[in-house]
Amino acid sequence: MAIEIEKKFLLKYLPSSLLTNGILIRQGYMVNEKERVVRIRLAGDKAFLTIKGITCNAARKEYEYPVPQQDAKEMLQLFCKEPLIEKTRYHVEFKGFEWVIDQFSGDNQGLVVAEIELDSVDQVFEKPDWIGKEVTHDSGYFNSNLIKNPYSTWQIK
Amino acid sequence: MAIEIEKKFLLKYLPSSLLTNGILIRQGYMVNEKERVVRIRLAGDKAFLTIKGITCNAARKEYEYPVPQQDAKEMLQLFCKEPLIEKTRYHVEFKGFEWVIDQFSGDNQGLVVAEIELDSVDQVFEKPDWIGKEVTHDSGYFNSNLIKNPYSTWQIK
Repeated sequence: MAIEIEKKFLLKYLPSSLLTNGILIRQGYMVNEKERVVRIRLAGDKAFLTIKGITCNAARKEYEYPVPQQDAKEMLQLFCKEPLIEKTRYHVEFKGFEWVIDQFSGDNQGLVVAEIELDSVDQVFEKPDWIGKEVTHDSGYFNSNLIKNPYSTWQIK
Repeated sequence: MAIEIEKKFLLKYLPSSLLTNGILIRQGYMVNEKERVVRIRLAGDKAFLTIKGITCNAARKEYEYPVPQQDAKEMLQLFCKEPLIEKTRYHVEFKGFEWVIDQFSGDNQGLVVAEIELDSVDQVFEKPDWIGKEVTHDSGYFNSNLIKNPYSTWQIK
């Protein structure tokens, strides 16, 4: 079990030159409730089953297990509520921290977010130029909400 | 992925002399819907996360993954709806088939069922003397239902 502490930001602009070696992610949810999330994720040639608990500040309990890719494909098709989340994930190093940039496609085309994982909620880190407004606590940007209300349908962006 | 074909029976009497090496099972459900089940099971010193699909005849799609025992204990406590299912499981060989006998405890104390796994829905097998009425399709005996309506509360048994 891991406690996951993440902060999520919008981008002022896309640092295109840094976006290399993207991995295509397709994920769906078997459970998508406030108290519990069961997620199936295909990430490149790997696949994972992930269980997450309730969000408390920026921390949440997370359990993740690798599963066979074929199982994940079947489970995504059989058990998950449409539409799936599709995004390309990039990893960018900046001043000792790794940023994860998710560029969405499909129903969430146009949305790009950057996340940083921290050891504690108040850990100090420096933001790159291209980092914009923090949206960690804005539930609209939760992947689990982007299924119900995809970015392409938002009136205000 | 496996297609699971099981038949479930009540017992005419308990074949006590055959009930050796029982394994205590504790399990809970993160999702417990008709279309999808996510189950966490502690079985002796092992633990499993299991995903099951919709029942069609006696067959259903099942995906099962071993998980660390400590993770399972935490997930049972954090994410599952009470009460848990508790039962002791015994394996009994009879004429080339393995029967699984589940003797329930806790809120389902008094209930005992026997299950046989088959290769096809119409595979022929011989029943031991102690096998009673078939309840494969009686949803009251599904583990997922025994959480909502435990055996101890049944008016007619």
